[in-house]
Amino acid sequence: MKLIGLDPGLRATGWGIIDVDGNNLTHVADGTVRVPTDLSLADRLAHLFRVLGSAIETYRPDEAAVEETFVNRNPKSTLKLGQARGVVLLAPAMAEIPVTEYPANVIKKSLVGAGHAGKDQVAMMVKTLLPGASIDSADAADALGVAVCHAHHRRSRARWESGVQVVHAATPAE
Amino acid sequence: MKLIGLDPGLRATGWGIIDVDGNNLTHVADGTVRVPTDLSLADRLAHLFRVLGSAIETYRPDEAAVEETFVNRNPKSTLKLGQARGVVLLAPAMAEIPVTEYPANVIKKSLVGAGHAGKDQVAMMVKTLLPGASIDSADAADALGVAVCHAHHRRSRARWESGVQVVHAATPAE
Repeated sequence: MKLIGLDPGLRATGWGIIDVDGNNLTHVADGTVRVPTDLSLADRLAHLFRVLGSAIETYRPDEAAVEETFVNRNPKSTLKLGQARGVVLLAPAMAEIPVTEYPANVIKKSLVGAGHAGKDQVAMMVKTLLPGASIDSADAADALGVAVCHAHHRRSRARWESGVQVVHAATPAE
Repeated sequence: MKLIGLDPGLRATGWGIIDVDGNNLTHVADGTVRVPTDLSLADRLAHLFRVLGSAIETYRPDEAAVEETFVNRNPKSTLKLGQARGVVLLAPAMAEIPVTEYPANVIKKSLVGAGHAGKDQVAMMVKTLLPGASIDSADAADALGVAVCHAHHRRSRARWESGVQVVHAATPAE
Protein backbone atom coordinates (compact mmCIF):
# COMPACT_ATOMS: atom_id res chain seq x y z
CA MET A 1 0.00 0.00 0.00
CA LYS A 2 1.56 3.29 -1.12
CA LEU A 3 0.43 6.70 0.19
CA ILE A 4 1.17 10.16 -1.18
CA GLY A 5 1.16 13.20 1.11
CA LEU A 6 0.84 16.68 -0.35
CA ASP A 7 1.61 20.07 1.19
CA PRO A 8 0.32 22.87 -1.06
CA GLY A 9 2.06 26.22 -0.76
CA LEU A 10 2.17 29.62 -2.43
CA ARG A 11 5.75 29.32 -3.66
CA ALA A 12 6.42 25.59 -3.38
CA THR A 13 4.34 22.43 -3.07
CA GLY A 14 5.87 19.40 -1.37
CA TRP A 15 4.99 15.81 -2.17
CA GLY A 16 6.14 12.62 -0.50
CA ILE A 17 5.38 8.94 -1.01
CA ILE A 18 5.71 6.21 1.61
CA ASP A 19 5.11 2.49 1.55
CA VAL A 20 2.99 1.01 4.36
CA ASP A 21 3.32 -2.67 5.28
CA GLY A 22 1.51 -3.33 8.57
CA ASN A 23 3.35 -1.16 11.11
CA ASN A 24 6.34 -0.65 8.82
CA LEU A 25 6.67 2.66 7.02
CA THR A 26 9.27 3.07 4.27
CA HIS A 27 10.26 6.19 2.36
CA VAL A 28 9.71 5.79 -1.40
CA ALA A 29 10.23 9.25 -2.93
CA ASP A 30 9.66 12.95 -2.34
CA GLY A 31 10.04 16.24 -4.13
CA THR A 32 9.22 19.91 -4.29
CA VAL A 33 7.39 21.68 -7.11
CA ARG A 34 8.71 25.23 -7.43
CA VAL A 35 6.68 26.90 -10.13
CA PRO A 36 8.47 29.37 -12.48
CA THR A 37 7.23 32.86 -11.53
CA ASP A 38 7.53 34.29 -15.06
CA LEU A 39 4.56 32.25 -16.34
CA SER A 40 0.91 33.38 -16.34
CA LEU A 41 -1.17 32.14 -13.40
CA ALA A 42 -2.96 29.58 -15.61
CA ASP A 43 0.37 28.25 -16.92
CA ARG A 44 1.83 28.09 -13.38
CA LEU A 45 -1.14 25.96 -12.32
CA ALA A 46 -0.71 23.75 -15.41
CA HIS A 47 2.99 23.29 -14.51
CA LEU A 48 2.04 22.24 -10.94
CA PHE A 49 -0.64 19.84 -12.24
CA ARG A 50 1.76 18.24 -14.74
CA VAL A 51 4.58 17.67 -12.24
CA LEU A 52 2.24 16.18 -9.59
CA GLY A 53 0.51 14.07 -12.27
CA SER A 54 3.87 12.74 -13.39
CA ALA A 55 4.90 11.82 -9.79
CA ILE A 56 1.54 10.05 -9.34
CA GLU A 57 1.93 8.21 -12.64
CA THR A 58 5.48 7.13 -11.75
CA TYR A 59 4.80 5.84 -8.21
CA ARG A 60 1.07 4.96 -8.49
CA PRO A 61 0.07 5.63 -4.85
CA ASP A 62 -3.17 3.97 -3.66
CA GLU A 63 -4.36 6.85 -1.47
CA ALA A 64 -3.60 10.54 -1.06
CA ALA A 65 -3.63 12.91 1.93
CA VAL A 66 -3.50 16.70 1.83
CA GLU A 67 -2.94 19.16 4.66
CA GLU A 68 -5.93 21.41 5.33
CA THR A 69 -4.76 24.90 4.59
CA PHE A 70 -4.23 27.51 7.26
CA VAL A 71 -6.46 30.41 6.28
CA ASN A 72 -4.37 33.54 6.05
CA ARG A 73 -5.52 36.98 7.20
CA ASN A 74 -4.47 38.37 3.83
CA PRO A 75 -7.36 37.59 1.43
CA LYS A 76 -5.16 37.89 -1.69
CA SER A 77 -2.72 35.27 -0.33
CA THR A 78 -5.66 33.06 0.68
CA LEU A 79 -7.09 33.23 -2.85
CA LYS A 80 -3.67 32.39 -4.38
CA LEU A 81 -3.14 29.51 -1.99
CA GLY A 82 -6.68 28.29 -2.75
CA GLN A 83 -5.91 28.23 -6.46
CA ALA A 84 -2.78 26.11 -5.94
CA ARG A 85 -4.63 23.91 -3.44
CA GLY A 86 -7.46 23.26 -5.92
CA VAL A 87 -4.92 21.91 -8.41
CA VAL A 88 -3.13 19.86 -5.69
CA LEU A 89 -6.43 18.18 -4.71
CA LEU A 90 -7.34 17.66 -8.37
CA ALA A 91 -4.15 15.79 -9.34
CA PRO A 92 -4.86 12.60 -7.29
CA ALA A 93 -8.65 12.89 -7.88
CA MET A 94 -8.14 12.83 -11.67
CA ALA A 95 -6.04 9.67 -11.20
CA GLU A 96 -9.01 8.21 -9.27
CA ILE A 97 -7.05 8.09 -6.02
CA PRO A 98 -9.15 8.80 -2.88
CA VAL A 99 -8.05 12.00 -1.11
CA THR A 100 -8.30 12.62 2.66
CA GLU A 101 -7.70 16.04 4.22
CA TYR A 102 -6.13 16.52 7.67
CA PRO A 103 -5.97 19.73 9.74
CA ALA A 104 -2.41 20.82 10.61
CA ASN A 105 -2.88 20.15 14.35
CA VAL A 106 -4.04 16.56 13.69
CA ILE A 107 -0.93 15.96 11.56
CA LYS A 108 1.35 17.42 14.25
CA LYS A 109 -0.36 15.43 16.99
CA SER A 110 -0.08 12.23 14.94
CA LEU A 111 3.67 12.76 14.46
CA VAL A 112 4.93 14.53 17.57
CA GLY A 113 2.09 13.88 20.04
CA ALA A 114 1.23 17.59 20.36
CA GLY A 115 -0.98 19.71 18.09
CA HIS A 116 1.16 22.81 18.60
CA ALA A 117 4.52 21.23 17.62
CA GLY A 118 6.91 23.38 15.56
CA LYS A 119 7.95 22.72 11.94
CA ASP A 120 11.42 21.53 13.09
CA GLN A 121 9.94 18.94 15.46
CA VAL A 122 7.72 17.59 12.64
CA ALA A 123 10.69 17.38 10.23
CA MET A 124 12.82 15.60 12.87
CA MET A 125 10.05 13.10 13.60
CA VAL A 126 9.59 12.42 9.86
CA LYS A 127 13.34 11.69 9.60
CA THR A 128 13.17 9.39 12.62
CA LEU A 129 10.13 7.50 11.27
CA LEU A 130 11.58 7.20 7.75
CA PRO A 131 15.28 6.50 8.49
CA GLY A 132 17.79 6.84 5.66
CA ALA A 133 15.58 9.10 3.56
CA SER A 134 17.33 12.09 2.03
CA ILE A 135 14.49 14.62 1.98
CA ASP A 136 14.37 17.30 -0.71
CA SER A 137 13.10 20.30 1.28
CA ALA A 138 11.08 21.44 4.31
CA ASP A 139 7.95 21.28 2.12
CA ALA A 140 8.73 17.71 1.07
CA ALA A 141 9.28 16.79 4.76
CA ASP A 142 5.85 18.30 5.57
CA ALA A 143 4.30 16.27 2.75
CA LEU A 144 5.90 13.05 4.07
CA GLY A 145 4.49 14.01 7.50
CA VAL A 146 0.98 14.18 5.98
CA ALA A 147 1.50 10.73 4.44
CA VAL A 148 2.68 9.31 7.81
CA CYS A 149 -0.35 10.87 9.56
CA HIS A 150 -2.61 9.21 6.98
CA ALA A 151 -0.89 5.86 7.59
CA HIS A 152 -1.52 6.19 11.37
CA HIS A 153 -5.16 7.19 10.87
CA ARG A 154 -5.84 4.46 8.33
CA ARG A 155 -4.51 1.91 10.81
CA SER A 156 -6.61 3.16 13.76
CA ARG A 157 -9.66 3.34 11.51
CA ALA A 158 -9.08 -0.22 10.29
CA ARG A 159 -8.65 -1.40 13.91
CA TRP A 160 -11.75 0.50 15.00
CA GLU A 161 -13.78 -0.83 12.07
CA SER A 162 -12.64 -4.41 12.67
CA GLY A 163 -13.46 -3.90 16.38
CA VAL A 164 -16.94 -2.77 15.45
CA GLN A 165 -17.35 -5.79 13.23
CA VAL A 166 -16.31 -8.12 16.06
CA VAL A 167 -18.91 -6.54 18.35
CA HIS A 168 -21.56 -6.92 15.65
CA ALA A 169 -20.58 -10.53 15.01
CA ALA A 170 -20.71 -11.24 18.77
CA THR A 171 -24.14 -9.73 19.30
CA PRO A 172 -26.29 -12.55 17.90
CA ALA A 173 -24.42 -15.16 20.01
CA GLU A 174 -25.10 -13.34 23.28
CA MET B 1 -11.89 32.80 -33.86
CA LYS B 2 -13.75 31.26 -30.92
CA LEU B 3 -13.45 32.58 -27.35
CA ILE B 4 -14.52 30.97 -24.09
CA GLY B 5 -15.41 33.09 -21.07
CA LEU B 6 -15.44 31.56 -17.59
CA ASP B 7 -17.03 32.80 -14.37
CA PRO B 8 -15.86 30.69 -11.41
CA GLY B 9 -18.19 30.56 -8.42
CA LEU B 10 -18.59 28.73 -5.13
CA ARG B 11 -21.81 26.93 -6.04
CA ALA B 12 -21.87 27.26 -9.84
CA THR B 13 -19.34 28.04 -12.57
CA GLY B 14 -20.61 29.60 -15.81
CA TRP B 15 -19.00 29.12 -19.19
CA GLY B 16 -19.88 30.72 -22.52
CA ILE B 17 -18.42 30.49 -26.01
CA ILE B 18 -18.72 33.14 -28.74
CA ASP B 19 -17.51 33.35 -32.30
CA VAL B 20 -15.67 36.52 -33.34
CA ASP B 21 -15.51 37.51 -37.01
CA GLY B 22 -14.22 41.11 -37.33
CA ASN B 23 -16.80 43.21 -35.48
CA ASN B 24 -19.41 40.43 -35.50
CA LEU B 25 -19.97 38.45 -32.33
CA THR B 26 -22.11 35.29 -32.41
CA HIS B 27 -23.26 33.11 -29.54
CA VAL B 28 -22.02 29.52 -29.87
CA ALA B 29 -22.87 27.78 -26.58
CA ASP B 30 -23.02 28.30 -22.83
CA GLY B 31 -23.64 26.32 -19.68
CA THR B 32 -23.45 26.14 -15.93
CA VAL B 33 -21.50 23.59 -13.89
CA ARG B 34 -23.31 22.90 -10.64
CA VAL B 35 -21.17 20.50 -8.68
CA PRO B 36 -22.88 17.78 -6.58
CA THR B 37 -22.45 18.78 -2.92
CA ASP B 38 -22.37 15.18 -1.61
CA LEU B 39 -18.92 14.50 -3.10
CA SER B 40 -15.57 15.08 -1.35
CA LEU B 41 -13.85 18.37 -2.18
CA ALA B 42 -11.31 16.60 -4.43
CA ASP B 43 -14.09 14.81 -6.34
CA ARG B 44 -16.10 18.06 -6.68
CA LEU B 45 -13.04 19.70 -8.26
CA ALA B 46 -12.56 16.68 -10.56
CA HIS B 47 -16.22 16.97 -11.65
CA LEU B 48 -15.74 20.68 -12.47
CA PHE B 49 -12.50 19.96 -14.37
CA ARG B 50 -14.12 17.15 -16.41
CA VAL B 51 -17.20 19.19 -17.43
CA LEU B 52 -15.14 22.24 -18.45
CA GLY B 53 -12.65 19.99 -20.27
CA SER B 54 -15.49 18.38 -22.18
CA ALA B 55 -16.94 21.79 -23.22
CA ILE B 56 -13.46 22.88 -24.38
CA GLU B 57 -12.96 19.64 -26.31
CA THR B 58 -16.38 19.98 -27.97
CA TYR B 59 -16.10 23.63 -29.08
CA ARG B 60 -12.29 24.01 -29.29
CA PRO B 61 -12.04 27.72 -28.42
CA ASP B 62 -8.82 29.52 -29.46
CA GLU B 63 -8.54 31.74 -26.39
CA ALA B 64 -9.97 31.87 -22.88
CA ALA B 65 -10.86 34.71 -20.51
CA VAL B 66 -11.60 34.43 -16.80
CA GLU B 67 -13.06 37.03 -14.44
CA GLU B 68 -10.64 38.09 -11.68
CA THR B 69 -12.26 37.02 -8.47
CA PHE B 70 -13.67 39.45 -5.97
CA VAL B 71 -11.85 38.74 -2.73
CA ASN B 72 -14.37 38.01 -0.01
CA ARG B 73 -14.02 39.18 3.58
CA ASN B 74 -14.70 35.63 4.73
CA PRO B 75 -11.35 33.81 4.43
CA LYS B 76 -12.99 30.35 4.31
CA SER B 77 -15.14 31.38 1.32
CA THR B 78 -12.10 32.97 -0.33
CA LEU B 79 -10.13 29.73 0.05
CA LYS B 80 -13.03 27.67 -1.40
CA LEU B 81 -13.48 30.07 -4.30
CA GLY B 82 -9.72 29.98 -4.90
CA GLN B 83 -9.81 26.17 -5.12
CA ALA B 84 -12.57 26.26 -7.76
CA ARG B 85 -10.84 29.11 -9.56
CA GLY B 86 -7.54 27.19 -9.75
CA VAL B 87 -9.35 24.36 -11.55
CA VAL B 88 -11.22 26.81 -13.85
CA LEU B 89 -7.90 28.41 -14.91
CA LEU B 90 -6.29 24.99 -15.31
CA ALA B 91 -8.90 23.58 -17.73
CA PRO B 92 -8.03 25.84 -20.71
CA ALA B 93 -4.31 25.90 -19.78
CA MET B 94 -4.14 22.08 -19.98
CA ALA B 95 -5.72 22.32 -23.46
CA GLU B 96 -2.91 24.80 -24.37
CA ILE B 97 -5.36 27.67 -24.76
CA PRO B 98 -3.99 31.08 -23.66
CA VAL B 99 -5.89 32.50 -20.67
CA THR B 100 -6.39 36.23 -19.98
CA GLU B 101 -7.82 37.52 -16.69
CA TYR B 102 -10.00 40.65 -16.43
CA PRO B 103 -11.06 42.50 -13.27
CA ALA B 104 -14.86 42.73 -12.82
CA ASN B 105 -14.92 46.52 -13.34
CA VAL B 106 -13.08 46.21 -16.69
CA ILE B 107 -15.64 43.63 -17.87
CA LYS B 108 -18.57 45.82 -16.77
CA LYS B 109 -17.03 48.90 -18.41
CA SER B 110 -16.42 46.98 -21.65
CA LEU B 111 -20.06 45.84 -21.78
CA VAL B 112 -22.11 48.62 -20.21
CA GLY B 113 -19.69 51.57 -20.32
CA ALA B 114 -19.54 51.88 -16.52
CA GLY B 115 -17.34 49.94 -14.08
CA HIS B 116 -20.03 49.93 -11.39
CA ALA B 117 -22.86 48.46 -13.54
CA GLY B 118 -25.18 45.93 -11.87
CA LYS B 119 -25.48 42.23 -12.75
CA ASP B 120 -28.84 42.82 -14.51
CA GLN B 121 -27.37 45.50 -16.76
CA VAL B 122 -24.50 43.16 -17.73
CA ALA B 123 -26.93 40.31 -18.49
CA MET B 124 -29.17 42.62 -20.59
CA MET B 125 -26.17 43.91 -22.55
CA VAL B 126 -24.96 40.34 -23.18
CA LYS B 127 -28.43 39.47 -24.56
CA THR B 128 -28.38 42.60 -26.76
CA LEU B 129 -24.90 41.86 -28.12
CA LEU B 130 -25.66 38.16 -28.71
CA PRO B 131 -29.24 38.30 -30.04
CA GLY B 132 -31.26 35.11 -30.18
CA ALA B 133 -29.12 33.30 -27.58
CA SER B 134 -31.07 31.36 -24.97
CA ILE B 135 -28.75 31.67 -21.98
CA ASP B 136 -28.62 28.92 -19.36
CA SER B 137 -28.23 30.96 -16.15
CA ALA B 138 -26.98 34.23 -14.65
CA ASP B 139 -23.55 32.61 -14.26
CA ALA B 140 -23.53 31.60 -17.95
CA ALA B 141 -24.53 35.18 -18.90
CA ASP B 142 -21.61 36.49 -16.80
CA ALA B 143 -19.28 34.05 -18.56
CA LEU B 144 -20.49 35.22 -22.00
CA GLY B 145 -19.88 38.79 -20.76
CA VAL B 146 -16.24 37.88 -20.00
CA ALA B 147 -15.90 36.42 -23.52
CA VAL B 148 -17.38 39.61 -25.07
CA CYS B 149 -15.01 41.76 -22.98
CA HIS B 150 -12.07 39.68 -24.25
CA ALA B 151 -13.28 40.12 -27.87
CA HIS B 152 -13.36 43.93 -27.38
CA HIS B 153 -9.92 44.01 -25.75
CA ARG B 154 -8.34 41.74 -28.37
CA ARG B 155 -9.61 44.08 -31.10
CA SER B 156 -8.26 47.27 -29.47
CA ARG B 157 -4.96 45.54 -28.77
CA ALA B 158 -4.69 44.35 -32.39
CA ARG B 159 -5.46 47.90 -33.63
CA TRP B 160 -2.94 49.38 -31.24
CA GLU B 161 -0.27 46.84 -32.20
CA SER B 162 -0.82 47.35 -35.95
CA GLY B 163 -0.60 51.13 -35.29
CA VAL B 164 2.73 50.64 -33.53
CA GLN B 165 4.02 48.61 -36.47
CA VAL B 166 3.04 51.35 -38.95
CA VAL B 167 4.98 53.93 -36.92
CA HIS B 168 8.02 51.62 -36.89
CA ALA B 169 7.77 51.00 -40.64
CA ALA B 170 7.56 54.74 -41.28
CA THR B 171 10.61 55.67 -39.18
CA PRO B 172 13.44 54.69 -41.63
CA ALA B 173 11.77 56.67 -44.50
CA GLU B 174 11.69 59.96 -42.56
